Amino acid sequence: MKIIVVGAAGAIGQAACAELAPRHDIVTAGRSSGDIRVDLADAGSIAAMYEAAGPVDAVVCAAGEVEFGRLADMTGEKYLFGLKNKVLTQINLVLAGQDLVTDGGSFTLTSGILDRDPIRVGSGSATANGALAGFVKAAAIDMPRGLRINVVSPGLLEVSAQRYGAIFPGHDPVSSRRVGLAYAKCIEGAATGQMLPVD
Amino acid sequence: MKIIVVGAAGAIGQAACAELAPRHDIVTAGRSSGDIRVDLADAGSIAAMYEAAGPVDAVVCAAGEVEFGRLADMTGEKYLFGLKNKVLTQINLVLAGQDLVTDGGSFTLTSGILDRDPIRVGSGSATANGALAGFVKAAAIDMPRGLRINVVSPGLLEVSAQRYGAIFPGHDPVSSRRVGLAYAKCIEGAATGQMLPVD
Repeated sequence: MKIIVVGAAGAIGQAACAELAPRHDIVTAGRSSGDIRVDLADAGSIAAMYEAAGPVDAVVCAAGEVEFGRLADMTGEKYLFGLKNKVLTQINLVLAGQDLVTDGGSFTLTSGILDRDPIRVGSGSATANGALAGFVKAAAIDMPRGLRINVVSPGLLEVSAQRYGAIFPGHDPVSSRRVGLAYAKCIEGAATGQMLPVD
Repeated sequence: MKIIVVGAAGAIGQAACAELAPRHDIVTAGRSSGDIRVDLADAGSIAAMYEAAGPVDAVVCAAGEVEFGRLADMTGEKYLFGLKNKVLTQINLVLAGQDLVTDGGSFTLTSGILDRDPIRVGSGSATANGALAGFVKAAAIDMPRGLRINVVSPGLLEVSAQRYGAIFPGHDPVSSRRVGLAYAKCIEGAATGQMLPVD
């Protein structure tokens, strides 16, 4: 399959690419690196990315940003930042690609553990993650041409534990190999409308 | 308890009020009716509402709007409308109230069934509903002074079935009585961080 991986340079994107590259033709995309540069906040940039990539059988998105903070320090703007930069970005990728991905292809989005196993500073992330789970559940039943859509929800990655572990007390980091497998399950398997936890 | 119910004039707000009013002091609020007028998109209006209400023991929000449409007809703006008008509005109500609700009090938000039992035109609603479930799960562990927070997620109400039933094929409408009970469970019970389905 030809698979475009948006956010390929990040820890999760690398995990997906490592698992998929031996068996598939990978096109990497990202804001500042990759075969194609794309700004997911810009519909024109997304359209140009699909145009440059040509027909693809699967789309992976491993890009997204949220604000972290204690509830007392959060603001509506901070939640909105995550909803725009982790949720709407991925939705826009799906909306723009629903007529371009080949018949029977798939979209695999990325959320994260914090809506099922929360941390104190994680309500912005949890809000975005929950939104993505709701989106794929509903979008799956209205996809054209047998397209499928799922969201992988990884725990803290081992490779990210040094950087973020302090705000994830007691979380058992997950291997990049297991995260990569979840993308393979979504792309090579048959599930749709699912949130796949990697705990 | 003194309970403020935002969106009290709607079908869900009426259901909550009918259950709670015999045992509690209810202050109704809404955009165009109620004891207090409030615009949840306006932080100043929310602050003025809390000021007018005085100390409250519980806050119910049964207000929210989303865009409905087939995936092929949806746009990023339509999802953003729901995220702003059903999710951020309720989050803003919590943020503004977290220092004002009395010790041990509660927030009870409202989502809906479409992220667990989707309909074709419901991905905007499902996205917002999922976001609210994620938010309360995470916010619950960072609430001050023993405050609790939950979200009631009702199915299509019997009283709304004539208006909306056509887009909910096979859904079995729920009684306003059962919807009202869910708010009582949240306010008079001890749960926190929960999504309470009313199916």
